[in-house]
Amino acid sequence: MPRLKDIYEFSVRSGIAFPTAESYGGLSGFYDWGRWGSLIKNRVKNFWLNYFVRSKDFIVQLDGSIITHPSVWKASGHADSFVDPVTVCESCGAVYRADHLIEDVLDRSAEGLSLEEMKEVIKNIRCPRCGGKLKDPEPFNLMFTTIIGPYSGMKGYLRPETAQLIFVDFPRLYMQNRKRVPFGVAQTGKAFRNEISPRNFLFRLREFEQMEIEFFFDPENPSRPPVDHSDIEVKILTASDQMEGRKEETKRVGDVVGDYPGREWMVYWIGESLKFFESIGIDMERIRVRQQLPEERAHYSMDTWDIEFFFDDLGWKEIEGIAHRSDYDLSRHKEFSGDNSYVVKSDEREFIPWVVEPSWGVERTIMALLYSSYRSGEREYLSLKPWIAPIDVVVLPLLSKEPLTTKAVEVTHHLVQYFWVEYDDKGSIGKRYRRYDQIGVPYAVTVDHTTLEDGTVTVRERDSMEQERVRLNDLVEYLWERVKFKWSYQKLY
Amino acid sequence: MPRLKDIYEFSVRSGIAFPTAESYGGLSGFYDWGRWGSLIKNRVKNFWLNYFVRSKDFIVQLDGSIITHPSVWKASGHADSFVDPVTVCESCGAVYRADHLIEDVLDRSAEGLSLEEMKEVIKNIRCPRCGGKLKDPEPFNLMFTTIIGPYSGMKGYLRPETAQLIFVDFPRLYMQNRKRVPFGVAQTGKAFRNEISPRNFLFRLREFEQMEIEFFFDPENPSRPPVDHSDIEVKILTASDQMEGRKEETKRVGDVVGDYPGREWMVYWIGESLKFFESIGIDMERIRVRQQLPEERAHYSMDTWDIEFFFDDLGWKEIEGIAHRSDYDLSRHKEFSGDNSYVVKSDEREFIPWVVEPSWGVERTIMALLYSSYRSGEREYLSLKPWIAPIDVVVLPLLSKEPLTTKAVEVTHHLVQYFWVEYDDKGSIGKRYRRYDQIGVPYAVTVDHTTLEDGTVTVRERDSMEQERVRLNDLVEYLWERVKFKWSYQKLY
Repeated sequence: MPRLKDIYEFSVRSGIAFPTAESYGGLSGFYDWGRWGSLIKNRVKNFWLNYFVRSKDFIVQLDGSIITHPSVWKASGHADSFVDPVTVCESCGAVYRADHLIEDVLDRSAEGLSLEEMKEVIKNIRCPRCGGKLKDPEPFNLMFTTIIGPYSGMKGYLRPETAQLIFVDFPRLYMQNRKRVPFGVAQTGKAFRNEISPRNFLFRLREFEQMEIEFFFDPENPSRPPVDHSDIEVKILTASDQMEGRKEETKRVGDVVGDYPGREWMVYWIGESLKFFESIGIDMERIRVRQQLPEERAHYSMDTWDIEFFFDDLGWKEIEGIAHRSDYDLSRHKEFSGDNSYVVKSDEREFIPWVVEPSWGVERTIMALLYSSYRSGEREYLSLKPWIAPIDVVVLPLLSKEPLTTKAVEVTHHLVQYFWVEYDDKGSIGKRYRRYDQIGVPYAVTVDHTTLEDGTVTVRERDSMEQERVRLNDLVEYLWERVKFKWSYQKLY
Repeated sequence: MPRLKDIYEFSVRSGIAFPTAESYGGLSGFYDWGRWGSLIKNRVKNFWLNYFVRSKDFIVQLDGSIITHPSVWKASGHADSFVDPVTVCESCGAVYRADHLIEDVLDRSAEGLSLEEMKEVIKNIRCPRCGGKLKDPEPFNLMFTTIIGPYSGMKGYLRPETAQLIFVDFPRLYMQNRKRVPFGVAQTGKAFRNEISPRNFLFRLREFEQMEIEFFFDPENPSRPPVDHSDIEVKILTASDQMEGRKEETKRVGDVVGDYPGREWMVYWIGESLKFFESIGIDMERIRVRQQLPEERAHYSMDTWDIEFFFDDLGWKEIEGIAHRSDYDLSRHKEFSGDNSYVVKSDEREFIPWVVEPSWGVERTIMALLYSSYRSGEREYLSLKPWIAPIDVVVLPLLSKEPLTTKAVEVTHHLVQYFWVEYDDKGSIGKRYRRYDQIGVPYAVTVDHTTLEDGTVTVRERDSMEQERVRLNDLVEYLWERVKFKWSYQKLY
């Protein structure tokens, strides 16, 4: 497996992602996605949308705004509780995230330490930069703030999670789903966290994208999921495993999720998440499911399971979290807004729906994809699934000469009806193969002199480099069979 | 044609778009996109991306960050010049955009008035709310500001246009395009403007989405566009028409664009824009191309043509602008950053590329789409092109009874491989037809008793309500022929 440094250099060099505004020295925690990376990011988000919205009859979509009414963040608890501890050097003014500093300098875990406890530990640490004295740690709110409207404007926030838009819009979404629970709402979009120390390339960003589903159900009658994923076996690490010093072990998902209202949906969403990761080409040997410790959990969650990927040089890192948020958010919005439409009626009983939330980081998912698919050595390429590759196929005339070029353009015209296709006649054929291998294009169609004689082309597969002659009349079907994901339709009601 | 009020009410009611956080009273200038609107928005953005990036071999994509290095906005001129005039009531504190106030109260144009001139006019106006005295107008910068990082953080901005990310990243994008001009870079994404008075539903928003292309060329050798659009005839209103009091008239695009480096690309992009709007189903009778007056143009532009749509109750409004930005932006970034890689080399000559920029507002495009496609009366429906409709097709068992339901689910499973399809068995068949007509679904497939006998289904077309019996074996081809856009591949080099 590659190291972070390899992935970073490869990304910058090959047009995946690079620091924003490099001419001005970049900006910590902000990256731009280039020619190929932006297409891969589109593919991941589109695949997710197709996987969870198009293919399931019980999930609908929302696209909420980044700046919403500031009261939303009072109600959600973010205005008060979305904080990290920060400490500042009295001499040089350097700013540190206190828990990370403790972990880095003392090589011990700071998970779950209170501000008071951190204060005691920090007393024994000097500023790593200048050796100066460090101030007592203080809470720093991670939300970016802004002012809405001119002059005596209103203080606003950039959303730190997409989730709240789904919660605050629940009354309307419920109507749009024709007043039925259970149902889920899916959303992709930007979120912002003013991290004290962004790091690890795309891992801890200040601006990033989420893919989230809020799944609403009746706690007294949660309904049966369309598929029972209890039997899925995967490396699992429970909270008690961690407290008792055990390592992850292969277990059944159905055996470890606790017994609370909605457990069947926690099992379902853990299972669906694993299937999603497998479908996009994540190396499943590197995946484990870990239960968060009570002190790790966000203020709104009664149980959370992380899906973690093993990065050789970074260790196990969360790429998705599946949180049981109970009725926390809807209840808070009901309370803070005084709007009763967060309460629904079913069989003449009134209740506030409960929520299970699977939440993915787009950039972290792509980091895991890059670690899973990057190959170097004799040949540098990305072994991406065709439906995640930036484009489906490239058409290459063997030589940049007539009549090969005209014929190859003709083939491109034909394929563009069905696929994302590029045409390229610049450079030797070997150089062009390497160019499209590098960014993960799964198939290259070559037009040569035989094409003109018998109407066949060669199709070269990226990983094996094997070539097959295919009749032009069969080309669409040949490629379709290989580059399109096989969808299935999951029906709940 | 509908009025704004009809479109607003329809949108809120049918799950297109609605005010964000309605439980807290909403927030002026911010909207959320619901179950169906979010899908339509995806469709418009995806279609645009396919139209301009997938189908053209000389356009690549960028996905830049919303917050970038603040120096970018110094260089671009936005930190100094991106202002609107604002006036405040001395008595009640109401805040107005001065030029809008003059237009609303005195019913005259305030276009091109200097701050000094506005000051004189404002002297004769009293606060419309309380009758109080108004303060002298002052410039108000429309960029949302924020603070990046904890404590002595850096002042940052939310991008007021996506364009600058393309400009500042030009050196890397140029490399990713293998050092060739001309080429274009396309980007979709959010932009933010702290409007003094947001209004007209989706028209003047504080948070909105853009679709922009920056097209770079050598001013001394701009190359020939792949298609010459000079002969396209459309309603045109030039700057001199306006100064001399003439109305728009049908003219050739090639006859009106000025004679400056890149004129062939201005003609090309006006033509491509018109073809794009026609392809997504904008009512082209309602379109005109208007040249901006010198005093209207943004600080960076030497010529700008707007594509305007006629909204019955709002009048002619810009839905796209095509600006000639010359080398303004790249030169400024070279100057402000000291980075010389904005200068390129061709045939041993060094130059800074010039730029033509077509820039669309996503929400304004959708407003024009809604005005073009909303039908009411006996039946309420959206007459959307199939490739812009929220989904392709819905499958309906005639009755919610076995074996019809099982058969209809089977058909859905089959279609989901190729289309965005929903299944629905809730309510009478007439009610279900109306439900999917309303949000513009072009085809409904009905499974009835005859289906079980002879393997045919009825396919109902939304606008004509005509039904045709189609064999299940032919269904995919039948629908594909009708719901997929016919792409063509445009090659430049």
